[in-house]
Amino acid sequence: MSAEPQSRQRRTRRRGNVSPPAKRDVNYRTLRNPFPPTPVFSEDRVEAIHESSLKVLEELGMKVLLPDARRRFKEAGARVDEDEEMVYIGREIIEEALRTAPRSFIGRAGARHRDVVFELGSLMIQSGGGAPHATDISRGRRPASLRDYEELIKLTQHFDVMHMANPLVEPQDVPTHLRHYAFTKAVLTLTDKLPFIYSRGTPQVRDAFEMVRNFRGLSEDEFNADVHCYTIINTNSPRQLDVPMAQGLIDFALAGQVSIVTPFCLMGAMAPVTVAGALMLSHAEALAAIALTQITNPGAPVCYGAFASNVDMKSGAPAFGTPEQVKANLGAGQLARKLGLPWRCAAGCAANVNDAQAAHETQMSAWGAVLAGCTVLIHGAGWIEGGLTVSYEKMITDMEVMQIFAELCTQTPVDDSEIGFEALAEVQPGGHFFAAQHTMERYQTAFYEPLIADWSNFGTWTERGEKDATQRANETWKNILHTWQGPPMDEVRVEEMEAFIARRTEEGGAPPES
Amino acid sequence: MSAEPQSRQRRTRRRGNVSPPAKRDVNYRTLRNPFPPTPVFSEDRVEAIHESSLKVLEELGMKVLLPDARRRFKEAGARVDEDEEMVYIGREIIEEALRTAPRSFIGRAGARHRDVVFELGSLMIQSGGGAPHATDISRGRRPASLRDYEELIKLTQHFDVMHMANPLVEPQDVPTHLRHYAFTKAVLTLTDKLPFIYSRGTPQVRDAFEMVRNFRGLSEDEFNADVHCYTIINTNSPRQLDVPMAQGLIDFALAGQVSIVTPFCLMGAMAPVTVAGALMLSHAEALAAIALTQITNPGAPVCYGAFASNVDMKSGAPAFGTPEQVKANLGAGQLARKLGLPWRCAAGCAANVNDAQAAHETQMSAWGAVLAGCTVLIHGAGWIEGGLTVSYEKMITDMEVMQIFAELCTQTPVDDSEIGFEALAEVQPGGHFFAAQHTMERYQTAFYEPLIADWSNFGTWTERGEKDATQRANETWKNILHTWQGPPMDEVRVEEMEAFIARRTEEGGAPPES
Repeated sequence: MSAEPQSRQRRTRRRGNVSPPAKRDVNYRTLRNPFPPTPVFSEDRVEAIHESSLKVLEELGMKVLLPDARRRFKEAGARVDEDEEMVYIGREIIEEALRTAPRSFIGRAGARHRDVVFELGSLMIQSGGGAPHATDISRGRRPASLRDYEELIKLTQHFDVMHMANPLVEPQDVPTHLRHYAFTKAVLTLTDKLPFIYSRGTPQVRDAFEMVRNFRGLSEDEFNADVHCYTIINTNSPRQLDVPMAQGLIDFALAGQVSIVTPFCLMGAMAPVTVAGALMLSHAEALAAIALTQITNPGAPVCYGAFASNVDMKSGAPAFGTPEQVKANLGAGQLARKLGLPWRCAAGCAANVNDAQAAHETQMSAWGAVLAGCTVLIHGAGWIEGGLTVSYEKMITDMEVMQIFAELCTQTPVDDSEIGFEALAEVQPGGHFFAAQHTMERYQTAFYEPLIADWSNFGTWTERGEKDATQRANETWKNILHTWQGPPMDEVRVEEMEAFIARRTEEGGAPPES
Repeated sequence: MSAEPQSRQRRTRRRGNVSPPAKRDVNYRTLRNPFPPTPVFSEDRVEAIHESSLKVLEELGMKVLLPDARRRFKEAGARVDEDEEMVYIGREIIEEALRTAPRSFIGRAGARHRDVVFELGSLMIQSGGGAPHATDISRGRRPASLRDYEELIKLTQHFDVMHMANPLVEPQDVPTHLRHYAFTKAVLTLTDKLPFIYSRGTPQVRDAFEMVRNFRGLSEDEFNADVHCYTIINTNSPRQLDVPMAQGLIDFALAGQVSIVTPFCLMGAMAPVTVAGALMLSHAEALAAIALTQITNPGAPVCYGAFASNVDMKSGAPAFGTPEQVKANLGAGQLARKLGLPWRCAAGCAANVNDAQAAHETQMSAWGAVLAGCTVLIHGAGWIEGGLTVSYEKMITDMEVMQIFAELCTQTPVDDSEIGFEALAEVQPGGHFFAAQHTMERYQTAFYEPLIADWSNFGTWTERGEKDATQRANETWKNILHTWQGPPMDEVRVEEMEAFIARRTEEGGAPPES
């Protein structure tokens, strides 16, 4: 690709006139999903799944282990069998809940530019969450510690494309009756994004709410009037809601905070072996949980959710990134749109190491979630071993994919100057555009700058030590942590929080419910 | 997940009644794309790009290096400047070409079940093609040889999701004046899929057509009446068509064989730095090439194509799997639908090794092609280093993704038995579905069986030697080659082909044109 003398001359002449282009400035913080939602079922079959779910709730019922939740369902008109702890929920209860559940609400973060909108059409992304283990190629695989949680939440804070602070790994080195203090402190002080609070029983939730209120400087009324934190509620599929999860739904609804309801339905294991069957079960359980929030506090913010994949029928092992997970994601999107509620969906990965399988599985399932029109995409970065481990390196390599999704949410300029007839006229046949005016005006901002991709040729790459993406990602996360600066914090409030934790610790903390 | 005693009992009772389910039987050979095409431009801006392309052809023109091609354009009414070798193509010539180019045609393979349909809505996939190097982790990176080509074509023959036989790697150990004999022999005898023929000048194409005709047992008229092979035509962007490519367009059109026209436009290098600008150039060049086929033989089968990505503006290195490539794919789909022609698009990967970057780039760009509604997806498996190398292991790990695309093209069953209300009634709250009748009837066929994914848990995976996807893929391709059995071949015709090659070799072969 040799330069034509003529265009080289132009380059020199014109460069003087061109003011240096602005550096690329992208906003990954507020995303709208640009993809047309992809259906897998005809509309009448979506209706058939929904009807079957209503029939399940009416005729087969849900086992609800918390007496207070059964009482609330009963007062709302459900038939309750106290001996069997079974609740049979009529469709009128579900319909009323779907009438009062809000279609759109704002999540208030620690800084206004981090606020997020829960509604169909929004796209919010989270990293992998809830793993008992952490791994990186420098320190190896280990039970996750508070240090791991703190490091990983710092990494997600670094990336604007991570829209909420989430429960990455379980800090197993902190005793369970004190763990929520350490966790909530980290999620409030190391990030300014919408914080996650675990639902492990009312005493812990009450502590955490108090920490959020005090740290944000909110009265109880102010706190209750807006969403300042969120939790994730997993049912015990099939058709069971346990004590801490039911308490969480009630506690968060009463406080006007958002529960993201997510039945975890593995086809062939805790759910029917078919995509349609797993979604029917998942949908029924989600509707029951949503109903509990609306019975408790009509209008309380709540997020529909689905996380369905299949198992390997030879071993029973969970599988992710499969065509069945993609189809389940797409079908769940159809059910969510039928309800009109914001909803969460998930990527997933069953690989044991950050290899090509791991990359393919996470990206494949993430596409399923994005094409399903999900509002919140969970487990988008770092999740391996079917959620048993968060990998620091995979966090980084997946982040590239999430950033590219964010790029795909941006407009593609196409006015006449972008089409560039003049640019074509400037370059001879067989020539090149490196020096064209059109290029000079745009080259610094035209393209996404990769986080981890190395586009150097084989010779250069070899000379530089043949580092694969995982090795480069290892350097990347270390650099981020090394130079990390937290969001601005009110040191007085941090001290008050520490005093609160010290007092509550002295009082014996709060063990989780089970 | 302990079994409920009751459901265990049912399992035992019912198993006797269930006849063993059929083994999973999927047809990956004929795919229809199920995804709604995703636009990046408004319809009026697609029209603006098309109009700009027509203006480029009329006012800026194409440099056409082959006198015979200039003569044909001139006879069709184009303004030709012989001194500058420039052809200025009026819109009426393009419009007439788009009127005669067929919207749908069949590619005849070596076996009827391998025939493919070129039309919008079809989805055909090819592996990576055209690489000068081959690599695998056992033998390392090397200039590609005939042995590499033969091994790789055997691998693609093994997978039904590879719909056409393609030019995987360049057999550099065969002299260029004889290479087309070895290549064409391999592409006819080691696979029964639609064969690729290189367009490296009329003498080589004539030889190859004769080999196809004789091997398929076709008269010249029979051969010309249907598509029995295809070629790929790359323009020399910007705005130039060289001698062998122009000869190929003419030779294939005269013989009723299909040219897949693909300008290769790297934004910021051989094309404008913007997505819209690169597509405008690519579209103009494709229209010029399509016009040449239709001027030569109105109604000749031809395939529109686009392959646009960006370069790293710091180094000039080609980049793939970028948001810009995805957007260009989507925009190219809009232009192709405007024309109504079958069209090819491409995945791509600039990584130097089969790592997470490589996986992410190929899958990301492949999604761009699939969501763009492409007819032929090229470089879907094995392509690394921006096309300089085909990796045996990446061929296998990418194949999983292509098979999952094929799975996503299948219907998702959703009749009442699939929804499975009865299955839910059978399983207690908190129980499992492993033993449910609904599961027993489907478990052997419900799910995609992975090619390379390993879903075993960390302990088992560690015990089995901690093999990553690339190491497993190495074993997989070796096993496939070890047990490989070719498609049925008429040995007499193979011998006749060998005699033909011997005679033509003695006559001096046919050097490529340049």
